[in-house]
Amino acid sequence: MSDDEQAPPEADIPPGYEALDWRRGFVGQVGPLYRRSGPDGASMGFRVLPHHANGMLNAHGGMLMTFADLSWGHVVAVETSSYWVTVRLMCDFLSSARVGDWVEGGGELLSRADDLFVVRGRVWCGERLLMTGTGIFKPIQPREPRPGEKAFTPRS
Amino acid sequence: MSDDEQAPPEADIPPGYEALDWRRGFVGQVGPLYRRSGPDGASMGFRVLPHHANGMLNAHGGMLMTFADLSWGHVVAVETSSYWVTVRLMCDFLSSARVGDWVEGGGELLSRADDLFVVRGRVWCGERLLMTGTGIFKPIQPREPRPGEKAFTPRS
Repeated sequence: MSDDEQAPPEADIPPGYEALDWRRGFVGQVGPLYRRSGPDGASMGFRVLPHHANGMLNAHGGMLMTFADLSWGHVVAVETSSYWVTVRLMCDFLSSARVGDWVEGGGELLSRADDLFVVRGRVWCGERLLMTGTGIFKPIQPREPRPGEKAFTPRS
Repeated sequence: MSDDEQAPPEADIPPGYEALDWRRGFVGQVGPLYRRSGPDGASMGFRVLPHHANGMLNAHGGMLMTFADLSWGHVVAVETSSYWVTVRLMCDFLSSARVGDWVEGGGELLSRADDLFVVRGRVWCGERLLMTGTGIFKPIQPREPRPGEKAFTPRS
């Protein structure tokens, strides 16, 4: 992000979401991003700002895929309290989000085979589904569990 | 991009590549990006800079997917001189690129069924393949052909 003034005021963020302190590198470019833990699992969110948009003032496809990667891969982080990498991501674009929209993303673990995690994910805006897809992720390094995350349990 | 000083000097760009004048919105965040037309088709390129990277100083997966989307979808632009949207993108991550690496991407048209274009794409760094995948794109609006592009030929 090129200017902190682009960050929306906290009042624009739905209850339960907390800002992620990701300011460096590519995740800094695509922020601000938010995360929430709840009974239905963890989700992530962001307000579509001009620096997320294409020329039609919709969230750019690259931004939606980046957000899918982060919010679906986050399922692996919650399950294993590990850093992870993406092996494959498949995204179906269903609808678009406008500048000003609040977009959320999350997923559910479909399977774990050895060290490959398959996540079914979606990205949505209110009642409107923007994207569905599947991600295959691989944990690469365990770390201290954060609130709401399971402890790391390696499988032999 | 937050600072024009992050743009690499022209001497760092391989011959034939021209900078794209994309400074606004999300494509401005992920730039600078470059394009080249050649006998083997069009390709795009970018130098991995700190604002493209993850914490391991590799190009972030979201950046590589964004670049795949742009460089594979560009095949449709060349074929039809149209603006396009992405319907589906499938990316397999094979290897990583470091800050400082020159990354290229391109693809070939596999099929055109009505107004859906299927592109087989890849992203590479020198001899090393970083990503392979498939994109499905849909032209949404014809425009004046740019140099190297075919004229728009609608199918009834």
